[in-house]
Amino acid sequence: MNKWYMNNGNQGDVVLSTRIRLARNLDAYPFPARLDSAGKQQVLDTARKALLTEDADANKSPDFTYIEMKNLTRTQAVALAERHLISPEFAAAREGRALLVSPDESVSIMLCEEDHIRLQVMQPGLALAVAYDIANKVDTLLDDRVQYAFDERIGYLTQCPTNLGTAMRASVMLHLPALTQLGQIARLSGTVSKLGLTIRGAFGEGSQSSGDIYQLSNQITLGITEQAAIENLQSITLQLIQQERSAAAEFCRRLPEQDRIFRALGTLQSARLLSAAEFMRHISLVRMGAAHGLIDLPLEKVNELIVQMQPATINAAQNKDLEAEERDCVRAELVREALA
Amino acid sequence: MNKWYMNNGNQGDVVLSTRIRLARNLDAYPFPARLDSAGKQQVLDTARKALLTEDADANKSPDFTYIEMKNLTRTQAVALAERHLISPEFAAAREGRALLVSPDESVSIMLCEEDHIRLQVMQPGLALAVAYDIANKVDTLLDDRVQYAFDERIGYLTQCPTNLGTAMRASVMLHLPALTQLGQIARLSGTVSKLGLTIRGAFGEGSQSSGDIYQLSNQITLGITEQAAIENLQSITLQLIQQERSAAAEFCRRLPEQDRIFRALGTLQSARLLSAAEFMRHISLVRMGAAHGLIDLPLEKVNELIVQMQPATINAAQNKDLEAEERDCVRAELVREALA
Repeated sequence: MNKWYMNNGNQGDVVLSTRIRLARNLDAYPFPARLDSAGKQQVLDTARKALLTEDADANKSPDFTYIEMKNLTRTQAVALAERHLISPEFAAAREGRALLVSPDESVSIMLCEEDHIRLQVMQPGLALAVAYDIANKVDTLLDDRVQYAFDERIGYLTQCPTNLGTAMRASVMLHLPALTQLGQIARLSGTVSKLGLTIRGAFGEGSQSSGDIYQLSNQITLGITEQAAIENLQSITLQLIQQERSAAAEFCRRLPEQDRIFRALGTLQSARLLSAAEFMRHISLVRMGAAHGLIDLPLEKVNELIVQMQPATINAAQNKDLEAEERDCVRAELVREALA
Repeated sequence: MNKWYMNNGNQGDVVLSTRIRLARNLDAYPFPARLDSAGKQQVLDTARKALLTEDADANKSPDFTYIEMKNLTRTQAVALAERHLISPEFAAAREGRALLVSPDESVSIMLCEEDHIRLQVMQPGLALAVAYDIANKVDTLLDDRVQYAFDERIGYLTQCPTNLGTAMRASVMLHLPALTQLGQIARLSGTVSKLGLTIRGAFGEGSQSSGDIYQLSNQITLGITEQAAIENLQSITLQLIQQERSAAAEFCRRLPEQDRIFRALGTLQSARLLSAAEFMRHISLVRMGAAHGLIDLPLEKVNELIVQMQPATINAAQNKDLEAEERDCVRAELVREALA
């Protein structure tokens, strides 16, 4: 089955993907940090049963795969994190944790991460409403079958107070090569934070941007509805899209920038050794060129390549524990084939 | 007609070309530096007549084109120097000077350069005997028809004392990317100078090496026969060929070097702006890869491209006075087409 990230969505030149993440906890149990192994196992069992049981009203549950994280190697787990299916923390400590994932990987549910249940829905391009709708359906199904920790005044209860309330984090993954090159990201970061949003590297808090990819997400969960948070994110995203698009179009008209873009493509098509960092640097330029008609290359293919060329994803696909140089050699070969 | 440099000769992986240059002066006139315009014109007329007159013994003179240098633009003249048909000095000051050149450009005769007659023969690859034979035939023909300045004890008289005697300079143009990268050129320079040879950049005295191309030539003209000088050059050239070939073969087996070579090719196939210096840097690696079977590209084509991508040669071919950036754009386009 095709994975969700093999598609290019709405506003796909700038928006790689949309994610809705809901944090939920079971009323009957302490948060995972305070749970022992037996307690965690009960949470896993409860959530699993609720999610995998056929619906009596003929609303079939999503066709999830249940994965006990302790059964995965570190490489397999990190590969899931590279695809944003799980958090890096979830990949690092796998004991007492489980993952449910839909066939196209657009819906994933981490059990016993920071909260009992971390439900996330990913969609290509800008698709906040669609993603929220899917998340909402799974959430409703769960809500019918388990007792959530919920407070009438506050909303959903979560371990970290920054999630209290809606416990929803909506985010878009933005490709901003032109604004990055113009040195605009620091300014944007200041601006969006005044609007209740935060912009950061692709792997969340504290992560560096790689390939000029940034995650823009809502910061506020308390005293705001999900709808309002999503509308705010949507509106600011549309403004950033316009800014990036116009800067990138201007770049792509200039010969020295065209030169940089085609050289990046030439390097990807020729190199025999290619680190992940260098790949991301070049593919970012190539993606801008492809989005603006300089390079005849579908963005779907670029998006897919960005996922597939991550270190652990390569090792997992090759089913080998390749060292860095071996992996750089394999990456170079895969990239050459993909861009031949 | 194909030019001589469109071929790949003997030992062509390392030896781009062979050149024999003979300096001759007419007994009846002072050296050019001491000649006025009228005197120079007489020298031009005398040499021209001697060279272009059909031979009474049915030995037809070479089919030379006679070019008065003052009729050339600076660009056209520099383009001739870039092809090594004339010296850079000859291109710079064109008044009172003329050039005779054979259809394939393998024989060229500068009139009123430093000496009255500077006859040179170029051949692809290592071909000292062939080149000397051709030079000798033209020299004999001239000798029959004009009175050379010659001293029984010293030999041919030339303006510069370093040419006295045989007045012959034999040289080979060597492509030494591996020895350059190993930092061996300074050592080689010391070694060959003890053996009566000198190694320098492709454009002679004081010129920098470009594209790892070097000119190796005999330094001694006095008290030595032409044959001995040529044999000495031949023998040392063969040793350098072995050293370069073995170093390059070793390089081409290593993945990081292969990576550099293919990246160089990728850049040449992709760039939209390409300076002459950057082109030479990359084509040098590509040539090494082509010579050692990494890249499927005939050396003839590489050799021709090295000549055709020089600045004035591009301007002359385009028949335009392109500025540096325009020319870098044209060069990039021509290189992409040639290596597509």
